[in-house]
Amino acid sequence: MESEQLFNRGYCRNSYNSITSASSDEELLDGAGVIMDFHTTEDDNLLDGDASPGSNYAMSNGGGGAGGVSSSTHLLDLLEEPIPGVGTYDDFHTIDWVREKCKDRERHRKINSKKKESAWEFTKSLYDAWSGWLVVTLTGLASGALAGVIDIAADWMNDLKEGVCLSAMWFNHEQCCWGSNETTFAERDKCPQWKTWAELILGQAEGPGSYIMNYFMYTYWALSFAFLAVCLVKVFAPYACGSGIPEIKTILSGFIIRGYLGKWTLVIKTITLVLAVASGLSLGKEGPLVHVACCCGNIFSYLFPKYSKNEAKKREVLSAASAAGVSVAFGAPIGGVLFSLEEVSYYFPLKTLWRSFFAALVAAFVLRSINPFGNSRLVLFYVEYHTPWYLFELVPFILLGVFGGLWGAFFIRANIAWCRRRKSTRFGKYPVLEVITVAAITAIVAFPNPYTRQNTSELIKELFTDCGPLESSQLCQYRSQMNGSQAYPAGTDTATPGVYSAMWQLSLALIFKIIMTIFTFGLKVPSGLFIPSMAIGAIAGRIVGIAVEQLAYYHHDWFLFKEWCEVGADCITPGLYAMVGAAACLGGVTRMTVSLVVIVFELTGGLEYIVPLMAAVMTSKWVGDAFGREGIYEAHIRLNGYPFLDAKEEFTHTTLAREVMRPRRSDPPLAVLTQDDLTLAELQAVISQTSYNGFPVIVSKESQRLVGFALRRDITIAIENARRKQEGIVLNSRVYFTQHAPTLPADSPRPLKLRSILDMSPFTVTDHTPMEIVVDIFRKLGLRQCLVTHNGRLLGIITKKDILRHMAQMANQDPESIMFN
Amino acid sequence: MESEQLFNRGYCRNSYNSITSASSDEELLDGAGVIMDFHTTEDDNLLDGDASPGSNYAMSNGGGGAGGVSSSTHLLDLLEEPIPGVGTYDDFHTIDWVREKCKDRERHRKINSKKKESAWEFTKSLYDAWSGWLVVTLTGLASGALAGVIDIAADWMNDLKEGVCLSAMWFNHEQCCWGSNETTFAERDKCPQWKTWAELILGQAEGPGSYIMNYFMYTYWALSFAFLAVCLVKVFAPYACGSGIPEIKTILSGFIIRGYLGKWTLVIKTITLVLAVASGLSLGKEGPLVHVACCCGNIFSYLFPKYSKNEAKKREVLSAASAAGVSVAFGAPIGGVLFSLEEVSYYFPLKTLWRSFFAALVAAFVLRSINPFGNSRLVLFYVEYHTPWYLFELVPFILLGVFGGLWGAFFIRANIAWCRRRKSTRFGKYPVLEVITVAAITAIVAFPNPYTRQNTSELIKELFTDCGPLESSQLCQYRSQMNGSQAYPAGTDTATPGVYSAMWQLSLALIFKIIMTIFTFGLKVPSGLFIPSMAIGAIAGRIVGIAVEQLAYYHHDWFLFKEWCEVGADCITPGLYAMVGAAACLGGVTRMTVSLVVIVFELTGGLEYIVPLMAAVMTSKWVGDAFGREGIYEAHIRLNGYPFLDAKEEFTHTTLAREVMRPRRSDPPLAVLTQDDLTLAELQAVISQTSYNGFPVIVSKESQRLVGFALRRDITIAIENARRKQEGIVLNSRVYFTQHAPTLPADSPRPLKLRSILDMSPFTVTDHTPMEIVVDIFRKLGLRQCLVTHNGRLLGIITKKDILRHMAQMANQDPESIMFN
Repeated sequence: MESEQLFNRGYCRNSYNSITSASSDEELLDGAGVIMDFHTTEDDNLLDGDASPGSNYAMSNGGGGAGGVSSSTHLLDLLEEPIPGVGTYDDFHTIDWVREKCKDRERHRKINSKKKESAWEFTKSLYDAWSGWLVVTLTGLASGALAGVIDIAADWMNDLKEGVCLSAMWFNHEQCCWGSNETTFAERDKCPQWKTWAELILGQAEGPGSYIMNYFMYTYWALSFAFLAVCLVKVFAPYACGSGIPEIKTILSGFIIRGYLGKWTLVIKTITLVLAVASGLSLGKEGPLVHVACCCGNIFSYLFPKYSKNEAKKREVLSAASAAGVSVAFGAPIGGVLFSLEEVSYYFPLKTLWRSFFAALVAAFVLRSINPFGNSRLVLFYVEYHTPWYLFELVPFILLGVFGGLWGAFFIRANIAWCRRRKSTRFGKYPVLEVITVAAITAIVAFPNPYTRQNTSELIKELFTDCGPLESSQLCQYRSQMNGSQAYPAGTDTATPGVYSAMWQLSLALIFKIIMTIFTFGLKVPSGLFIPSMAIGAIAGRIVGIAVEQLAYYHHDWFLFKEWCEVGADCITPGLYAMVGAAACLGGVTRMTVSLVVIVFELTGGLEYIVPLMAAVMTSKWVGDAFGREGIYEAHIRLNGYPFLDAKEEFTHTTLAREVMRPRRSDPPLAVLTQDDLTLAELQAVISQTSYNGFPVIVSKESQRLVGFALRRDITIAIENARRKQEGIVLNSRVYFTQHAPTLPADSPRPLKLRSILDMSPFTVTDHTPMEIVVDIFRKLGLRQCLVTHNGRLLGIITKKDILRHMAQMANQDPESIMFN
Repeated sequence: MESEQLFNRGYCRNSYNSITSASSDEELLDGAGVIMDFHTTEDDNLLDGDASPGSNYAMSNGGGGAGGVSSSTHLLDLLEEPIPGVGTYDDFHTIDWVREKCKDRERHRKINSKKKESAWEFTKSLYDAWSGWLVVTLTGLASGALAGVIDIAADWMNDLKEGVCLSAMWFNHEQCCWGSNETTFAERDKCPQWKTWAELILGQAEGPGSYIMNYFMYTYWALSFAFLAVCLVKVFAPYACGSGIPEIKTILSGFIIRGYLGKWTLVIKTITLVLAVASGLSLGKEGPLVHVACCCGNIFSYLFPKYSKNEAKKREVLSAASAAGVSVAFGAPIGGVLFSLEEVSYYFPLKTLWRSFFAALVAAFVLRSINPFGNSRLVLFYVEYHTPWYLFELVPFILLGVFGGLWGAFFIRANIAWCRRRKSTRFGKYPVLEVITVAAITAIVAFPNPYTRQNTSELIKELFTDCGPLESSQLCQYRSQMNGSQAYPAGTDTATPGVYSAMWQLSLALIFKIIMTIFTFGLKVPSGLFIPSMAIGAIAGRIVGIAVEQLAYYHHDWFLFKEWCEVGADCITPGLYAMVGAAACLGGVTRMTVSLVVIVFELTGGLEYIVPLMAAVMTSKWVGDAFGREGIYEAHIRLNGYPFLDAKEEFTHTTLAREVMRPRRSDPPLAVLTQDDLTLAELQAVISQTSYNGFPVIVSKESQRLVGFALRRDITIAIENARRKQEGIVLNSRVYFTQHAPTLPADSPRPLKLRSILDMSPFTVTDHTPMEIVVDIFRKLGLRQCLVTHNGRLLGIITKKDILRHMAQMANQDPESIMFN
């Protein structure tokens, strides 16, 4: 019994028969006997023509002691230790959630049973119990700190394109002028300490020469930053490019991409993110911040064996980290948790919900104490509106939703088409050139237009903000203000030429952003999509908002406006339109719903405006879904061929398991192993002739009754291990998966026992099971494969890849696009 | 083929072999042939001694047309229609989630395939697609409206205990005095229109006589309300009692309790909730509001066949409804959604998240437009604090958390012990007497103390509120105010005797509330636990808060206070302590975490105070969990023996499936059916001799290989149906579950085909599967039963009840307490 217990430690699912057998085997032996009497006897031997009567029966009862002693003692030397490497995964492979969770519970039990032994063990168990909270706290701290650093650095470098602060080089434009006493509030952007490049180099602030000099320096810095960013990514950490969210989604669904969340990716992504944002490319830092936070989570999880050695547990930390990432990106902790729940995570137990919330809060508070925006606000775009909205305004809000949905659908198609072209043609071979070109075009086109020249976040902030007496923006130049009357509200008034020219510039900025974002997302630099999408929506929303406002002004006696919009009153808030438009566009691209509404709700802090937001976001999602149900992240996952089984997408076809399972008609027969009549040479032949990741083990070829499942990787490792450590293992050695060695002729070589790597509880479905149920099982339990039986006999196997290929086929897509298993 | 398609409509999982067979059977036939070549041939006949070679083979391939024609045509008359009643459930039984979801997808496909046929069908499909949104909108509207009505009615009846408004009988005290011009702001509670009972009856407002008269009338009304409430519940709707949340949790986990969410329960619960709240018992209306909202959801779901005919889909509506219930109870829509997700729901797909959010918002807005609190605020306790908290204050906050955890653990034990006594002794036979007794004690003890006499919600509001210049509460009688200086802040000052007497009264109120709540929760009237728990926490918190405040005042030069608390400054907010205490106590009782923090966050609206709240709620949960992991709702579920498999509780034992499965050693052998050699009499004998809910169907007794699973209810219904509609069915008729009738002697009676009720994809696990995996499968897929096999042969069965009993046994509880299946 002792030896049994030691044998099986390496493999979770089997270890029970040993742990529990001492107490219950005898009872079960009898119990089973009773069943057998009724069911007729266990007829394995009869069917399989096995030479050792009773051996299978003993096995089926967990090895009740006597009979197997000799073989187990002579194997003790080898199998005392769990075989190293068994239970780990190859790169670009899918994890087995059930096995991982089971391993963790085993580990937990071991710690729990030991904890009363000594004070040290008790301390260890306490450390283990607290490590979950520790790791999310550390992740939150690190994410918050990194986000603060990135914010400050990006702001500084962004202003470097315009000029430099002479009094203190490390101040950005705003900070530089804070210290100055010479600026009035109205001209708070201008102060003597801040010099534009033209002033510095040419010595003059105005005139065409200085404009050209500023233009040149702007482009020069933009190109330098972009070049540096792409080179760093290319040389040091190729995984640091893009937004990272598609890959994180895939990783969280149980895929292994080694190095994707490693320390090099973290360092390079942090640096290049600053460079990419500062280069003025049409990208945001919100998506990459999620990637940065997940890197922190992954790195800190290596401090705790509970998380570093268990892929499923590690993913709980990553879920919490992604919540922290969104929390710092927008200053919205609850929205971050819901984002993690709705958009990113796959397996999200309630404990993770709680820890994600904690991580998100910690990160948000760290960021607030760093105070990168200088306004002691947690949120990126803090806005306060003063007027309520009216029912009629739902019409333009829904129109903005339609626009957002159309934009989302168009963007996804165009961007995926462009990325596919990049992947498939020679064009993708020159990432540096591509980045430089896009950066150059962006900088050259962006500079003349003030709305594209400025930082996109600032643009969004300006568009969201309501026109008040303190606003100096061109968008707020209404007549009443021009006349010197600064009284609040400054709402519905005749627009001045300033507003009209702003509208023109905004329209051009809209077109520019739409085009550039399509070509920018997918470049080999860190690039997020949230901010550009929101900017497009905010521009469109503000334009619609001003249009409605002017309509209300000139036609205030229309039946629509009559009741609630008096002459001169402030009845339309164009800033609210901008916010609704931003939410709609972001919703159209990502197809987020609740989390998006909650994020924007946390920005405004008022329940008041949730209804317009919901109306727009829902419309946007429905319109977008009409053109294709995938969000941008799912589309990129599919483009990259990752094995991602989307929990949101319903499987609606009527196929049965037997139509999806392998082998198909034209395939070679299913590669199976028999439980006790293979030689090592035969086993190796099966392994080398096939490329499957695992093999079903059956009682015998005649009966086709399933015993268990053995993974290719585990078999290879076990054979190597046995060859190294165990003498007498030759090609002719019998390999057996049963509890006790089969009775062999006296002169046969020493047999090799592989029971410890056998999964004795493989998942099975019948061949008549509808695929929708099979897909549900795969999703909910996180399976890698499932065996198909008919009336108790093994027929075939369905892997996650088979399912994804089948789904692609059903959707008239290329099944070969699913590349990984 | 046509007839096949019609046959199987009644039973979801089988209907695929017909729908898909036309396109793929032939291909599969060949494909299977290839597999069989390798696997050796299908040897069913060989093993089973079946008299009809080939019939099983044909079956395994879905019935490819020829051969079965004669039998299917002669059965056509019977089986054209799906058998009515198959696929429904008995009362107090568990639903099969997989089957329900599968039925829904089938229905969806049918509608989708028809929708292009005509404009009418298209309209129907649109109606079907929108019905989910419609039903949650209606539920939100109804819940909001009912909550408003309940709030107004309860307020009015509560004030009726004190007196009556002479100018308008239907006004409560506050509304009565709004209209009065004669009251000053300071004495806004007193106005000539409002008459206490003493003033009305005795004609005098002051003096011992009028006090006794008021005391008498207060008790009289309290007893009348309580008596009326319990009688209504007892006579009309026994399910209307209690909070309803334990039962709703059980129902959402897939249990059927007919009438629990019916119209009578709704009507009676609404009325008696008002009466119970007005009677002054120590109970709240928040839990019952969730029940009321779920009743609305259930009733509206009957308008839509998509939801009324599918138990799984109906539960999606109920999840959304419970979110709406909490949303109107606290005015916290996001908190409501998280409550539904964390505490109540079982199966919560993302679509439900979105709809829950919508329902919660609609309900909140309806409530706000009804405006029952008269302050146009959405939330029940709106508070605004003006001072930040300091790090040192975390110590009292955590102490409050410890208090909350201890209170929670104590309350759960005491309340469950009392409820168990009520269930097991004669005492529970007199519910009316019990309610009257508790109401009388409550009223008599409560009246003299102003903090127990007033409405509990108002008490909480007063305790939460910070002392400002406008507060006339006894709790705010600090010296600076007494001196006439009304300047804000009125914080850290010497407390007057008024504050000290308030502290004494609060302490007595605390003891009173603690004792009465234990005896009140579980009475046969609607009774929520949120408000009493929060009141206890708020009282304790306020006492601690005032203590800390006075400590800071008298010892402001202590190193602890020195740095941040200047003399006379307002550095401690006792109202915040009350709020933290309320959250801690509610957390201790319910073990809610995130949703609780978010609900309280929505009350205050500031991220600022989340950290104290989290610290207290986390401490409270950990302290509570140390004394027992169950919250009050889980404890009540267990007390009632409902089959609830908690998703939060981890199964940590090392048992294997074969140790849990039936039959056990002492049990009779497993009752099984063979697929084609039973007669009707034998089948009926098996059914009548056993009480199992279902029977595995096997190939033959010799091989024990599993074919499928048939439910007792379905078999009974199918036999009755056949007897009624089909001629020639006698006791001697052969019953078969195969595709084609077995070849019978010429003179044998007409056979009965039961394939349409056979579930051909039963879930199976091997006998070596650890129970933790089995429990996981049951939870995630929502199974009712699972079959256990060993090497492809059927060994036994595990039902949900078996699992729950096993878990109870492992926790050293009485396994017989699990009563339902």
